[in-house]
Amino acid sequence: MSKKYVIGVDFGTLSGRAVLVEVDSGNEIATAVKDYAHGVMDKYLPDGKTRLGNDWALQHPDDWMRVFTETIPAVIREAGINTSDVIGIGVDFTACTIMPVYMDGTPLCLTDKYKSNPHAWPKLWKHHAAQEEANRLNAIAFERGEKFVDRYGGKQSSEWAVAKVMQIVNEAPEIYDEMDRFIEAADWVTWQLTGIEKRQICTAGYKGIWNKRDGYPSEEFFRVLHPKLENYVEDKLSSELLPLGAKAGEISEKASKLTGLMLGTAVCVGNVDAHVSVPAVGITEPGKVLLIMGTSTCDILLGTDEKIVPGMCGVVEDGAMPGYFAYEAGQSCVGDHFNWFVKNCVPALYENEANERNIDIFKLLEEKAAKLKIGESGLLALDWWNGNRSVLVDADLTGLIIGCTLATKPEEIYRALIEATAFGQRMIIETFENSGVPINEVYACGGITSKNDFMMQIYADVLNKDIKIAASNQTPALGAAIFATVAAGEERGGYDSVYSAAKAMGKVKDKYFKPIESNVEAYNKLFAEYRILHDFFGRGGNDVMKRLKKIKEEANNAG
Amino acid sequence: MSKKYVIGVDFGTLSGRAVLVEVDSGNEIATAVKDYAHGVMDKYLPDGKTRLGNDWALQHPDDWMRVFTETIPAVIREAGINTSDVIGIGVDFTACTIMPVYMDGTPLCLTDKYKSNPHAWPKLWKHHAAQEEANRLNAIAFERGEKFVDRYGGKQSSEWAVAKVMQIVNEAPEIYDEMDRFIEAADWVTWQLTGIEKRQICTAGYKGIWNKRDGYPSEEFFRVLHPKLENYVEDKLSSELLPLGAKAGEISEKASKLTGLMLGTAVCVGNVDAHVSVPAVGITEPGKVLLIMGTSTCDILLGTDEKIVPGMCGVVEDGAMPGYFAYEAGQSCVGDHFNWFVKNCVPALYENEANERNIDIFKLLEEKAAKLKIGESGLLALDWWNGNRSVLVDADLTGLIIGCTLATKPEEIYRALIEATAFGQRMIIETFENSGVPINEVYACGGITSKNDFMMQIYADVLNKDIKIAASNQTPALGAAIFATVAAGEERGGYDSVYSAAKAMGKVKDKYFKPIESNVEAYNKLFAEYRILHDFFGRGGNDVMKRLKKIKEEANNAG
Repeated sequence: MSKKYVIGVDFGTLSGRAVLVEVDSGNEIATAVKDYAHGVMDKYLPDGKTRLGNDWALQHPDDWMRVFTETIPAVIREAGINTSDVIGIGVDFTACTIMPVYMDGTPLCLTDKYKSNPHAWPKLWKHHAAQEEANRLNAIAFERGEKFVDRYGGKQSSEWAVAKVMQIVNEAPEIYDEMDRFIEAADWVTWQLTGIEKRQICTAGYKGIWNKRDGYPSEEFFRVLHPKLENYVEDKLSSELLPLGAKAGEISEKASKLTGLMLGTAVCVGNVDAHVSVPAVGITEPGKVLLIMGTSTCDILLGTDEKIVPGMCGVVEDGAMPGYFAYEAGQSCVGDHFNWFVKNCVPALYENEANERNIDIFKLLEEKAAKLKIGESGLLALDWWNGNRSVLVDADLTGLIIGCTLATKPEEIYRALIEATAFGQRMIIETFENSGVPINEVYACGGITSKNDFMMQIYADVLNKDIKIAASNQTPALGAAIFATVAAGEERGGYDSVYSAAKAMGKVKDKYFKPIESNVEAYNKLFAEYRILHDFFGRGGNDVMKRLKKIKEEANNAG
Repeated sequence: MSKKYVIGVDFGTLSGRAVLVEVDSGNEIATAVKDYAHGVMDKYLPDGKTRLGNDWALQHPDDWMRVFTETIPAVIREAGINTSDVIGIGVDFTACTIMPVYMDGTPLCLTDKYKSNPHAWPKLWKHHAAQEEANRLNAIAFERGEKFVDRYGGKQSSEWAVAKVMQIVNEAPEIYDEMDRFIEAADWVTWQLTGIEKRQICTAGYKGIWNKRDGYPSEEFFRVLHPKLENYVEDKLSSELLPLGAKAGEISEKASKLTGLMLGTAVCVGNVDAHVSVPAVGITEPGKVLLIMGTSTCDILLGTDEKIVPGMCGVVEDGAMPGYFAYEAGQSCVGDHFNWFVKNCVPALYENEANERNIDIFKLLEEKAAKLKIGESGLLALDWWNGNRSVLVDADLTGLIIGCTLATKPEEIYRALIEATAFGQRMIIETFENSGVPINEVYACGGITSKNDFMMQIYADVLNKDIKIAASNQTPALGAAIFATVAAGEERGGYDSVYSAAKAMGKVKDKYFKPIESNVEAYNKLFAEYRILHDFFGRGGNDVMKRLKKIKEEANNAG
C-alpha cells in the first residue's frame, strides 16, 4: 500500500499555511504559506471609503479561500504525490473570528447590498470594539447568577461571540435580521470544502458559551441581553455540534476543482489554533500543560473533572481531546513585553553593537542577560504591561519594576521581564494545582520556544518542571493534520482515535529543558517576592495601579 | 573712591574657578577656570605604581594651588583693575575633603617619605572606602546615646571626617601618628593664602561632629572608636573655630607673590560649596530653602531653633549664616537619574531624531515630555535609584516604576523620573514643616535650574511654591566673594555683615516659576499615591527592596 498523507491548514492572523503530513510518521513533507491580501482591516473597508471605528479588526473571506486554492496545490506539487494518497484535510483558525452569512454560506459582506456595512464583515479575534457589550454581558450574567460565569474565570471577553453579536444587534440590527447564520470562520472554511454547514464544540465551548451538559444559556438570558437576541441560538446558530476529529463531510465537487483534492476526501471539523496543537506535541492525557508561546501565551491543559480555577479563560468538556475537560488559561503579554522593551528601551549603543556584530538585537540582549547570575540585578518585575488576564483577571493592572539603581543595565531589565513572565506562568500553574487540577509536565510550542533557549531554561528553573519543546515549527497545522487522520478513519489509512494519531504523529524534540537545582532554589526566593507584590497590588492591598489608570483616563478626557 | 572688588574661589570636584565681583553691585566682572591636572585619583597615586582600593577618591594639593596661581592673575588681568581695589578673597570647597599635614601646613603626601602612602593624600568628599568605619561609628554612637546622633539625621556618613580619620587609624596608623593636623581642604587653602592655620565652623559642624554648645564628642567616645583616637580633637584639630565671614588673616608675602594680590588683602575663612551659596541668592532669613541642584540636590535652610528633623544631614548653629540654625538635607539622585536614563534607556530612534535635528537628547526628551498632560502616562516612580538619603535615610532602598503598559513611551518614563524627584523634594519640605521648621519660599541654583524650565515648572507645581532661580551661574564663587566682603569689613569698602552683603550682592533672576493651580491639583493626586508607596516600601510595609538587595549581594558573593 502506498504511503498516505493528510493536509493541515492553519489560518493565522496575517496568513494561512498548509502542511502536508505523512500519516504513519507525522513527518512534514511540504509546506506552503499564503499571506492575506487584505491582512487585518482596521481602518477602512475594502471599498476604501468606509472608515472603521477604534479597536475594529476585520478580515476578508476571499483571503481565506485563496489559502485553500494556492497552498493545497502547492504542497501536493512540492511533495510530488498523488492526490489519491491524501486521505483527509483539517483546518484550524484563530478564534473567535466570526461572521454573518446566508443559509447557503454566502457572507453578507460579499453581497452588493451589504459590502459597505462594516458589521457584514468577519470580525477578527482581536476586534476589540465590543467592550461595552462585554461589560454589559458580564454584569447581567453575574447578576443573574448564570452558571456559566465561573467556567470562564468570571468574565466573557469582548473578543468572544456573544459580545460580538451584541455589537451587531446594537449598531446594525439590519445585519442581525438579515443573516441566517452567525458562524465561526473555522466552521465556515470547512463548509466551503464540503458544501455542508457543520460546527464543532471547541469554538462553541470556549467562545460561544456552550456547555456539553447545559447547552447554551437560556432564551431568557439572551432576551435580557437584547430583546432581538431571544432566539439567537435557534435562529442564528446550528444546534448540532460535532466532536473534535469528527468528519464534517467530504471534498465537494466545487472544492475539488478549487484545490485539486479528490472528490470524497475526508474533511475534518474545524478547530482553534491553540487547542489543535495539543496532540501535535503528543499530549493525550491529563497532567500535561501545553504553553503556546508568542506575543502572548495560551495554556491548554487536560483534566478529568470540571474544577473552577481562578483566572482560567474557559473549561470545556471534550474541548481539546475527547473524554477530558480542557482548560484554557494564559498570559496576555509575553513576547509583546520583549518587543515593547526592544522598541522603547534599548539604547543606541546596544543597537550599534548588534549591527556591528550583525546579530539580532534580541540575541545581543540574551547574550548579555545570560551572563547575569540569578538575582544579581536586584530587579523584580510584575508582568502586567497588558494587564493581568490570568489568575487575577484584571485588565486594569499595570506593569511594575522594582530594584532599579544607577548601575542598572538594559540587559538586567530585559532579564527581569523574562523572569516576570515565568513567574506569572508559575502563578497560573500553582493556581491550577491548588484548585485540584494537577500539572506534572510542561510542553511548549511557538516560535520563541525554539529560538530562545535562554528563556526556556529560565522557565524550567522557575517552574521547577521539565519543559519539552514541540518538534514541529508549525504545530497548529500539524495538529489539524492529526485530527484529519481521525476524520478519515482507520479503514481509509488514518487512525481510529486522536489518542493513537497523537501517539504516532505528535512529537517533541529530543532536547528538553531540565530545571537546575541551584537555579530553582535561587528563583524560589525571587518568586516569593513576586508573589507578595502580585497579591499586594493585584488583590487590593494598594489599588494604586487602578487609581493611576483612572487619573490617566481623566487626563486624556480633559482634552 | 574707585570701585572695590572681591574674589571668590570655588574649588569643585574637577576644577577650580575664580570670580571677580564688584562689591557694591555683586556684578561678576571676570571668571577663570582651572582644571585639576590630576582630577580625581581613584585608581593610582601620582607615582603611577601605587594602586588604590575600591571606592577610593583622592586629590592633589598642587592642583588646588595652581587654581590660585593661574585663575587669580587671570581675572585681574581680564577685568583690567588694580589689585589695590581688591579688598578681599574668599574660598569655598567641596567637603569633607580632608588631609593630614604637618604643623607648618606641608601635606604628608608631598614628602618623599609618605608620597607613596595613599593615606597621606587628601581624601576627596566622595572617597567611599570608609563605610565600615562609618558603620562602626554609627553603631557606637547609637549605643552610647550620643547627643549628636539626632543632629545628623541619625547617621554619620562615610564621607565625613571621623569615618575618614578612623580609616587612617585602622589602615595606616603611622600616618595618624605622623600628622600634626587633620584639616579640611577649605581651611588648608586659606592657610596657604595667609600663612596661619584658621578653621571655621561650617565644615567642623557638618562634617566633624562639632556643635557650638556641646563642642566635639568626648575623649571617651573617641577612645571607644579607637584607643589611638582618644586625643584626636586635642592633638590633630585646632580648637579655635571662626564664624563664617570672619577674617582668617591677610595675604602673606608668599601668597602675594603667587597670586599677584596685594600684601594685606583680607582673606576670609573657608566655606562649603553648598552652604556658601545661600547669600548668593540673597537669602538672609529663615523660611527660605535653597536647592542646589546637580547630579544630586542639596537643600540648605535657615531656622530659628534647633529642631530634630527626620532625614536631615545636619543642623549647625551659625552653619550658613550667623545667628541662625542652618539645616542641610537633600536627595542623592537627581541629575544622575536623568543621566542614567539617557545612557541606558533611550532608544536609537530618539538618538537619531536628536542628531538629525541637531539638538541635545535631553532637549528632545523634554520636548516630548512637555506635551504630556499631568497623569496622562499613568506612570509613577519612587526616586530611589541611589537609595533614599533624605527623609528615610536608607541607602538600601531602590528605584521603582509602576504603571507601565505596552503603550508606555520613553518620554513618559523620563517625565515620571523628573516628577519623582520633585515628589521626593516635597517629602523633604513637608517633613521640615511638620517638624516645626517652616518653609515659605524656594530658591534654586545649579546648572539644571537655568537650562531646564520644564523641570523647574514641575517642581513649582509639585511643591506648590514659587521657585526663584539664582541669577548667577557660579553661585558658590559669588557666595565666597560675598563672605569676603564681610571679612574685608566696612571700613575697607566691604560690608559690616553677611546680611547687608547678601542684600546688596545676592541675586535671583526676574523670571521665576509660579505654581499653576490646575497643575497643583493634578500633582496633589499623584503625590498622594507617591506618599503611599514611599511609606509602604520605605517604612517597613514590604522590605522587598532590602531583600532583593541581599539576594543581589549573595549572588555576587557566590562568585
